[in-house]
Amino acid sequence: MPATMIVRQHVIDTLRGIFEMHGFAPLETPAIEYAATLEGKYGEDERLLYRFEDQGKRRVGLRYDLTVPLARVVAMHLSDMQFPWKRYQISPVWRGDNPQFGRYREFYQCDVDIVGTASMLADAEILSIYGEVMDRLGFTGYRVLINHRKLMSGLAKAAGVPPSEMGAVFRVLDKLDKIGREGVRDEMQKVGVPDEVVSKVLDLFLSRSEVHSASDNLALLSELSGPLKDDLEASQALADLRQLLEALSYMVVDPDRFRLDVTLARGLDYYTGPVYEVMVDEPKIGSLGGGGRYDKLMSLFSGRDLPTTGGSFGLERIIDVMIELKLVELEATTSQALITVFDASAESTGTSLKLAGELRSAGIPCEVYLNPGDKLGKQFGYADRLGMPFAVVIGPDELSAGTVTVKSLKAPPPNQQTLPRAELKAFLLKRTREA
Amino acid sequence: MPATMIVRQHVIDTLRGIFEMHGFAPLETPAIEYAATLEGKYGEDERLLYRFEDQGKRRVGLRYDLTVPLARVVAMHLSDMQFPWKRYQISPVWRGDNPQFGRYREFYQCDVDIVGTASMLADAEILSIYGEVMDRLGFTGYRVLINHRKLMSGLAKAAGVPPSEMGAVFRVLDKLDKIGREGVRDEMQKVGVPDEVVSKVLDLFLSRSEVHSASDNLALLSELSGPLKDDLEASQALADLRQLLEALSYMVVDPDRFRLDVTLARGLDYYTGPVYEVMVDEPKIGSLGGGGRYDKLMSLFSGRDLPTTGGSFGLERIIDVMIELKLVELEATTSQALITVFDASAESTGTSLKLAGELRSAGIPCEVYLNPGDKLGKQFGYADRLGMPFAVVIGPDELSAGTVTVKSLKAPPPNQQTLPRAELKAFLLKRTREA
Repeated sequence: MPATMIVRQHVIDTLRGIFEMHGFAPLETPAIEYAATLEGKYGEDERLLYRFEDQGKRRVGLRYDLTVPLARVVAMHLSDMQFPWKRYQISPVWRGDNPQFGRYREFYQCDVDIVGTASMLADAEILSIYGEVMDRLGFTGYRVLINHRKLMSGLAKAAGVPPSEMGAVFRVLDKLDKIGREGVRDEMQKVGVPDEVVSKVLDLFLSRSEVHSASDNLALLSELSGPLKDDLEASQALADLRQLLEALSYMVVDPDRFRLDVTLARGLDYYTGPVYEVMVDEPKIGSLGGGGRYDKLMSLFSGRDLPTTGGSFGLERIIDVMIELKLVELEATTSQALITVFDASAESTGTSLKLAGELRSAGIPCEVYLNPGDKLGKQFGYADRLGMPFAVVIGPDELSAGTVTVKSLKAPPPNQQTLPRAELKAFLLKRTREA
Repeated sequence: MPATMIVRQHVIDTLRGIFEMHGFAPLETPAIEYAATLEGKYGEDERLLYRFEDQGKRRVGLRYDLTVPLARVVAMHLSDMQFPWKRYQISPVWRGDNPQFGRYREFYQCDVDIVGTASMLADAEILSIYGEVMDRLGFTGYRVLINHRKLMSGLAKAAGVPPSEMGAVFRVLDKLDKIGREGVRDEMQKVGVPDEVVSKVLDLFLSRSEVHSASDNLALLSELSGPLKDDLEASQALADLRQLLEALSYMVVDPDRFRLDVTLARGLDYYTGPVYEVMVDEPKIGSLGGGGRYDKLMSLFSGRDLPTTGGSFGLERIIDVMIELKLVELEATTSQALITVFDASAESTGTSLKLAGELRSAGIPCEVYLNPGDKLGKQFGYADRLGMPFAVVIGPDELSAGTVTVKSLKAPPPNQQTLPRAELKAFLLKRTREA
């Protein structure tokens, strides 16, 4: 409904504004893809795909995420694309997960990706965008957690985790926040990790210095370089992270927001490099978005090597948290003022219509009361119930005196004042900016 | 792809901006509706519905338009709504009309409606929005045609058309532009309208003064009041139109753009009052949008009497025409400048990242070249192929002198100049505003 939609538009506009400031171009892919494009991409979650036959008897499906369609589009337009290619897409996706009566699993993904470069500057740009978005939306208590796929593998290898059990171990580590250190130990034992390996995993992953600032990040990187010095891939991961954090220090975000966390697992199946996730301190609801580097996925349809990094924001979750933290007010209308119509005469209507046009030209969203002849009290009630801050009266007295009367609907009486008509724009602009 | 998407976003932003200036609140309904909600609403076009079963074995379908979902939403939220209720929705709809290989009938509708008032001020507001949108998008040769459902019925009745044949006669009249006066005569005869009725229809509908201005509108209304003076409904239609045109004369649009056209039929099945359509002089491609008053449809699910008027814009058609008329330039990126990276050193990268942050803070969309170490020529090539107007160089010389070098990629050489770093923002802001 409109109140939430106005917040939603505000969040989407903020995201878009920041993406476009960084030179990301918009992309929109169709909601309907060939089923074959979607199938075989989502593992056991494939059962959540909405699939059907179109009028031409072709098997099609609704978009499940924005990443597989991106890979398809890149493959189709490979020859006219410039790499690195920076695109964003803000679109609904559909997942048929036990739909409740009257509720469908339709939700928005807001993705921003850089296709075709392995440069850590690309990862740093995505991370900076997380900070910029959170700052711009008004979040004060948040942090962006960072890990690296190959650092995690390196630590696991150093702990003696056999490759076949790495996935399981990472999934357990990822739950550290929820189940605590002892929970992690128990679950690792449950999945059959030998006791001595469990101890080493706890030692290597969980005994690391806690990171609360940018300088803690550097200390942790040094601390890790010892046990990993003979592991080429893990050392490269440490170098990647150093480069990434260095780049971030030149960007417009607060470096202390960004914190290494070696337990962050995040969709390990296709990530190949840095991974990241943005968390709010309160409420405790998990991440508002995340992403990482996935250097193999873009070759899915194109066959071409296209290292890629990108992040995603969860629109619905961001909105829920903003409402809970009172970072936004829910309003049922965009109108800042109702221009009342004094009586049913053509002159009164014309006067109000002209005034509304003047205000709109000055950038003040407003509306004229549409049922002339209704009593002013009824008109005020309409504006008030919709949450408009002001109602403007322009009757015969005001007209002959060159004035208008403004009623402030959110203030207690006396909340009415008469001012020269020429001053109304400035009055409303000032008041609505203050609000 | 991005170039068209940037234009699309520009058009959507323009529409939204104008809708919200008028106090319309955004609404978004789900893409998937219960099949039963959609069925029985679209006549024989129902075959175009995409229908399927969801994971819970419920019969569902993709949204076919934005009007039926609006009626459903109004019925569901009747008790917490304020009327008149002004909402807009800009969303894709799906129609499975002979889809070609790789092409689906997914397109955007941009609807703006006022629910719950019979006031002609509401119709005038929608009409004003048509003018404001066309002006703001830069169209110069356009007109908004206006008719009234009950005026049309009145004229047909006066010509002796039996009620059962009215629909057929209106459909033929609506083709006047395409088939001409003689074509209209032939087709009416073909559908079995008696000769003497055909003559009267031609006389009453086609012999009216041509309307080219606001004063022609008033002349035509007077001219029509004679033959219709005994028809109460038709006289009410003439009064409606008079009131509507009067209101428009106080609004921020040019009244000469609005022209009565008694042959405009436009989806006669559910319209009950004024109908309208916006046409461009060139190219000859039909309307870019249209709408009208439909006082019965909103009661479909609610059972409550909710007179409603509203209009729709065809996004894809507007974009096609804007591109054809060169009202917009296709650009593959939102970046106004590439900040090159002088060499692979951390210092060069840091310098460029900081400069980009400064420009973005001033509202200049820009990006840093992401593969430091590439030659400057390659970096310029990347910016040029994406259509960025400027590339900025900040090497050791510039750094020590406190300057930057700007290369204008769209100008012939000499297209490079060095200026104080502090002047770069103003330089780029001025140039990009001029473009």
